[in-house]
Amino acid sequence: MTALTTYRLADLSEADRARLCTRPADLDGAVLDAVAEIEAVVRERGDEALHAFNARFDTAVDTLRVPVGRLAEAWAASDLAFQHAVETAATNIRTFHAPQGATAYETEPMPGVRCWRETRPIERVGLYVPGGTAPLVSTLLMTAIPAQLAGCTRIVVATPPPAAEPILAVAGFLGLEEVVQVGGAQAVFALAYGTESVPRVDKIVGPGNAYVTAAKWRASRFCAIDMIAGPSEVLVMAEGTSNPAWVAADLLSQAEHGTDSQVVLVATDADFVQAVQAELDGQLATLPRRATAEAALAHSFVVVASALDEAIAFSNRYAPEHLILHLADWQPVAARITNAGSVFCGPLTPESIGDYASGTNHTLPTAGLARSMSGLSVEAFSRTVTFQSLDAGGLAALAPSVTTLAETEQLRAHARAVTIRTEASS
Amino acid sequence: MTALTTYRLADLSEADRARLCTRPADLDGAVLDAVAEIEAVVRERGDEALHAFNARFDTAVDTLRVPVGRLAEAWAASDLAFQHAVETAATNIRTFHAPQGATAYETEPMPGVRCWRETRPIERVGLYVPGGTAPLVSTLLMTAIPAQLAGCTRIVVATPPPAAEPILAVAGFLGLEEVVQVGGAQAVFALAYGTESVPRVDKIVGPGNAYVTAAKWRASRFCAIDMIAGPSEVLVMAEGTSNPAWVAADLLSQAEHGTDSQVVLVATDADFVQAVQAELDGQLATLPRRATAEAALAHSFVVVASALDEAIAFSNRYAPEHLILHLADWQPVAARITNAGSVFCGPLTPESIGDYASGTNHTLPTAGLARSMSGLSVEAFSRTVTFQSLDAGGLAALAPSVTTLAETEQLRAHARAVTIRTEASS
Repeated sequence: MTALTTYRLADLSEADRARLCTRPADLDGAVLDAVAEIEAVVRERGDEALHAFNARFDTAVDTLRVPVGRLAEAWAASDLAFQHAVETAATNIRTFHAPQGATAYETEPMPGVRCWRETRPIERVGLYVPGGTAPLVSTLLMTAIPAQLAGCTRIVVATPPPAAEPILAVAGFLGLEEVVQVGGAQAVFALAYGTESVPRVDKIVGPGNAYVTAAKWRASRFCAIDMIAGPSEVLVMAEGTSNPAWVAADLLSQAEHGTDSQVVLVATDADFVQAVQAELDGQLATLPRRATAEAALAHSFVVVASALDEAIAFSNRYAPEHLILHLADWQPVAARITNAGSVFCGPLTPESIGDYASGTNHTLPTAGLARSMSGLSVEAFSRTVTFQSLDAGGLAALAPSVTTLAETEQLRAHARAVTIRTEASS
Repeated sequence: MTALTTYRLADLSEADRARLCTRPADLDGAVLDAVAEIEAVVRERGDEALHAFNARFDTAVDTLRVPVGRLAEAWAASDLAFQHAVETAATNIRTFHAPQGATAYETEPMPGVRCWRETRPIERVGLYVPGGTAPLVSTLLMTAIPAQLAGCTRIVVATPPPAAEPILAVAGFLGLEEVVQVGGAQAVFALAYGTESVPRVDKIVGPGNAYVTAAKWRASRFCAIDMIAGPSEVLVMAEGTSNPAWVAADLLSQAEHGTDSQVVLVATDADFVQAVQAELDGQLATLPRRATAEAALAHSFVVVASALDEAIAFSNRYAPEHLILHLADWQPVAARITNAGSVFCGPLTPESIGDYASGTNHTLPTAGLARSMSGLSVEAFSRTVTFQSLDAGGLAALAPSVTTLAETEQLRAHARAVTIRTEASS
């Protein structure tokens, strides 16, 4: 019923391959226009605008800021299985992220020319956590823990009103203090410009719908953002001996995210694809979000490669957010993966363990941006600052090169800033 | 004649301080409209559009790509002082950047749950190098060397036609092979989309005018960029015993960049400011780019702080691209600098040495983005990819947490991707 479109890689022209690797992207013009209006209103009217947008798009709330006591209360009131799951995930996320962060170092490129690099946390960061019927508690864990490890001093969480209890609970567990109830593009602009209740931040991270994404893009003119996120994606690489039920379950776990989810199967065996198709039909029958998953599968596709080499080349070209290697001998393949956000190695490693609790970050580049960007990390919440200090010998040694290059660029005052010193000390 | 506006920090209200730290930013609406048109034309018509824009904005050239042989020829034909300066700068830049790059590591957050991180170069990068009367050879060194150290396989240089000889020479010296003669917004979109002559790249870096910046912002919807760059800036921190002639020379070396350059002096001594003013007037008289520097100084300002603590707080709030510490005892101050792109420590360290040859990168965040971004580095040309692999014990241990969190988020197929495996193996 939801037959996946299947291509033989060998039959595809260069143009076909390029088309399959292109995401149905670009920001929607109508969304961009709406978001530009929201920006102007939030910038001009602050909290008043946020209350009005809450009433219009979500639910009106009396106070935008959640009292900090409510956070600890929500954690205390949450059930034990939930607490245990959150603690396990948080411990693993901390363990995996702890070694991250740029290291300080110093060099002396020439005698008397000392250059070094130090690390500083970004002081104020905003975490956007989508709300609604399925509160994304995992997003709060994945964004807040690296920010805490980086040493950010002000961490502001924005989530649509009324803030979901599980999100408040996780904020309480993490010891966060600033949660504001505002969602959508208005939340992004509140964080970017600041309002009476929402502190202005230096960087905004976290996933969201098309309005949130468009707002982040607009805010990126003057505020750092993590990335422009498109629909979530998985590419599953499988072979004839892979388990078709497990592969089907992995494809569906991506397909249930949204009707625009991107699901790709690259297999080296055509018969295996038939078996996966049968499993998909069976598993779909009992899936609560069946309609969503079916819609996503309708624009998904299968590529049959004649050999693993071809499969790897296609995957690297597609540059998936998530890549699952359903391969018995995955090690040599993993070493050849150049473009992917996060890679799940071997048949016992479904994507969903990384979505929640293995420890790796689930905020990952989509839409082919894995070719140029990394997932969220401690580094994303830090900066490196470079320093240099010269003594008279170092300055004298560098002076001829600096003045020559400054003169090539016709910047005489640059040269003079050097010569005024060297002439004085000679 | 060009009296710098001077404020006593103690007299400034919170609103005044905020205003002084705000750059006259935002992308110009008319420029954005023009750039959106250029995007559509380049995307649709490729090389043909580039030739037309070259003729309209710069100079028509027969071939967009510079033959690779021309690069080595230009280097061989360049004069010895230039070659020596380029070699010195390149050696220092390599020495300073070589230790950069994220390190690979592995963790085992729980028994049977292995998570690790590896580094991959961005494969295809585009370097924009402004041309015109003052070819920015230093920009080519500062962008190409980190890209080469990162291991980028395709490095495409775009520079306005006709490409300046010193830029061709440096490309030849660096062993680059792809230089295309196209400038402005059209160059950015050619790199972002690809044309017949210009390869599509995964990330675009390098400075440019307002059109280039607006084009980079538009391209950032689907292509990584280094940063949205505003006018160049320096903040000089000085004390009563600083050398006013050297401080004035440093202020002018920033002011000559452009009429929109931002130049700020923060001093702890009001009499010293008078001495700097006198030096500025004297040095301006003999500066070739005097008109530019005077225009920049007209909107620059001086802040007199009552103590270094106040000066440091103001500098961190301003978050300058370049910070010069004209202080005898600069070490304790440097340690307290949180927001700056690159810091020049002590009276013998003018900014211009970092602009060209000390080894640090001169591509730095402006307009307050030093609060959230770092200068260009090897990391900017690399990505980290995360991996994970579970065995049956690890999957069993993680399963309860994953299924609990998936159910909180109402994502049943996520839970099933785990349980279908654990049930099979139990």
